[in-house]
Amino acid sequence: MSTTAVEPFDTVDLIRVKRSGGALSTPQIDWLIDAYTRGYVADEQMSALTMAIFLNGMERREIRDMTLAMIASGETMDFRSLSKTTVDKHSTGGVGDKITLPLAPLVASFGVAVPQLSGRGLGHTGGTLDKLESIPGWQASISNERMREILDEVGAVICAAGSGLAPADGKLYALRDITGTVECIPLIASSIMSKKIAEGTAALVLDVKFGSGAFIQDRAQSRLLAQTMVDLGTDAGVTTTALLTDMSVPLGLTIGNALEVRESLEVLSGGGPADVRELTVALAREMLTLAGQPDADVEAALDDGRAMDTWRRMIEAQGGDASAPLPTARETQVVTAPRSGFLVEQEALPFGIGAWRLGAGRARKQDPVQAAAGIELHAKPGDAVVEGQPLFTLHTDEPSRFARALEAVEGAWSIGNAAPAARTLVVERIS
Amino acid sequence: MSTTAVEPFDTVDLIRVKRSGGALSTPQIDWLIDAYTRGYVADEQMSALTMAIFLNGMERREIRDMTLAMIASGETMDFRSLSKTTVDKHSTGGVGDKITLPLAPLVASFGVAVPQLSGRGLGHTGGTLDKLESIPGWQASISNERMREILDEVGAVICAAGSGLAPADGKLYALRDITGTVECIPLIASSIMSKKIAEGTAALVLDVKFGSGAFIQDRAQSRLLAQTMVDLGTDAGVTTTALLTDMSVPLGLTIGNALEVRESLEVLSGGGPADVRELTVALAREMLTLAGQPDADVEAALDDGRAMDTWRRMIEAQGGDASAPLPTARETQVVTAPRSGFLVEQEALPFGIGAWRLGAGRARKQDPVQAAAGIELHAKPGDAVVEGQPLFTLHTDEPSRFARALEAVEGAWSIGNAAPAARTLVVERIS
Repeated sequence: MSTTAVEPFDTVDLIRVKRSGGALSTPQIDWLIDAYTRGYVADEQMSALTMAIFLNGMERREIRDMTLAMIASGETMDFRSLSKTTVDKHSTGGVGDKITLPLAPLVASFGVAVPQLSGRGLGHTGGTLDKLESIPGWQASISNERMREILDEVGAVICAAGSGLAPADGKLYALRDITGTVECIPLIASSIMSKKIAEGTAALVLDVKFGSGAFIQDRAQSRLLAQTMVDLGTDAGVTTTALLTDMSVPLGLTIGNALEVRESLEVLSGGGPADVRELTVALAREMLTLAGQPDADVEAALDDGRAMDTWRRMIEAQGGDASAPLPTARETQVVTAPRSGFLVEQEALPFGIGAWRLGAGRARKQDPVQAAAGIELHAKPGDAVVEGQPLFTLHTDEPSRFARALEAVEGAWSIGNAAPAARTLVVERIS
Repeated sequence: MSTTAVEPFDTVDLIRVKRSGGALSTPQIDWLIDAYTRGYVADEQMSALTMAIFLNGMERREIRDMTLAMIASGETMDFRSLSKTTVDKHSTGGVGDKITLPLAPLVASFGVAVPQLSGRGLGHTGGTLDKLESIPGWQASISNERMREILDEVGAVICAAGSGLAPADGKLYALRDITGTVECIPLIASSIMSKKIAEGTAALVLDVKFGSGAFIQDRAQSRLLAQTMVDLGTDAGVTTTALLTDMSVPLGLTIGNALEVRESLEVLSGGGPADVRELTVALAREMLTLAGQPDADVEAALDDGRAMDTWRRMIEAQGGDASAPLPTARETQVVTAPRSGFLVEQEALPFGIGAWRLGAGRARKQDPVQAAAGIELHAKPGDAVVEGQPLFTLHTDEPSRFARALEAVEGAWSIGNAAPAARTLVVERIS
């Protein structure tokens, strides 16, 4: 290879640079991602390199170069011809995180275009598309032309990302998944941002979570990820800000696809759990600020039905029946409070795993999910509970799943004599 | 994979352990090497793991476990049924390192069996088999039965290692070669020692080199490698010692296959360059000490023809014509001293690269080598030289190679007004 190649770089040399803690140049990164996409750089070479990056890190300039190279590996979208400003949102994902559902129509109701290319869930965090697919008739896959039409007419669209955006990222992510290099901030940042920048949005708001239900549990690490992504967006010309939010406790009172749609409808009707409404409003304000409407009365649009109206049009534009009843599970099992007191603990991760085991999530990409499976919470930390009252209800179509779900949540909640200190949901804004 | 496998471990979990600086257990390492050999652990997973090992290291117990697991991946040899004690030698390789050629017959002339399973050269360090193949008729590949016969009759055999010994090591080494994880002490040690232990020798002497022409240039690192291998041998029941030797300057006065055979014959005739004789004698004494003959008069066996007699029988046992003239190069080019003074510098690595570029070595495994190509040195550091005297001669069959060889050695030698401080060749014995 080394003597006959017309390639400008030697892969092993590049691995050695990262192995010894050095930085790759812009031409080296451009070549690397292109050569990996076309198969010249082998998977085993890329996995050694990503482990070196995992352990030795990357500079801000390298992360930007890698992101731009991944964007260049595929097609890009461009919404500049729309008559509206576009603002996108991305969440790093959590347990009970259904915020995209009320948020996209809420922001769109102010005349802003919100193109939400979303994914399906894998593991304990649910996927936005899985949630919407519990609505009868709703289709995740639409053409780029149809997406643009909906953005023009309705303003909000939530659909499946095509494989044409940043294909190098798709290939690299699949490799990282089997080689133990997923939890690496430079690589996470460039993976997320390459797709978001390729989408062609003008502005982007990130919801970066920390705590037991988050992808990165440590707050300082999550903050670093948020700052890295904000810097990346800024460097690429996309106005980007981030909210750092607490994911120690499930968001809202539902975990599971149809259950979360139901809760989103409550929020779109001006109600819903306080934390879901709070985060929806905070992210909508952030998005509208980036879209030039810092004074928009976001709460009014939830309370007076404007957001719900946009929701209905958004769902119907993709074939969904916004009035149809949502599926409900065949079986439920209620867990009650063994004593009176205050609910002190309710850990996000075990409840996410519990819902997953009930059928709400998938272990492998090709697995189906149950629309109606999940967990409904009847109390949140800080709430007073009385002995015998329902604490949470498990939902599933397959009662054989109850035992392992109960196992998952065992020890994940507790009742004490005093209410715990109140949590702050949105702990920081990063720009 | 994770949900349906009956495998006892998850590969990603093992990668994570090394990624975070932990130690793998003995059952984990046994499984890993076995699963990698049968293809269950993928190359891209193994390369991520080896990069994590490269950067985070391995404990002595892990290195031993990995070595034993690699031995268990293939066949092993056993020379215990021979009527002689077996002692093996391994050199980490260097420029002009032809020591195996005089050493094996020298030690065998004392009634000790010396089974030398050797390799071909890749890059700037030559391979023992390439050197011997410059002898008309000599064959590197022989059966295990024939090897045993020669050990019985002659005492010394130098031949190609079959692929049956430690196949996991062969697979892992090929992977490390393309993924930038070659220069890693735990992996080098277990690679070398797995083959040596599988060979079934009772004792082993290691020649571990440092300096510009060595595989590992840093002396402290080389010392660490030597100690790691000595510990490994000891842990596996093979009496092992190591000499730490200086490879800053080419060994002897020749670099190249037939040129080095010629120099070896000089040593076997009681002559030859002082450094080649010194190292041959030092290693022979070490080997004979391990074989129970600490007082053997090694120098006498070189001076009185006993070693040469064994050499002839060893070469002829593998079809070689020990009396045939060695091939000579079609073209030579002499470089002369531009001024009078003392030769101060003569860096091993550039001279090794120069000889390689003349055709003595190969860039790819499948490349042929030129038997007669190489560099002949006419002076060594410390020698007084007069303006116009030959300093070194380039040998090749293809004169187009001269320019790039001269480029390699440019700046690698210098003449000063005073002789440099004398170097110590064997700096330390490690046991």
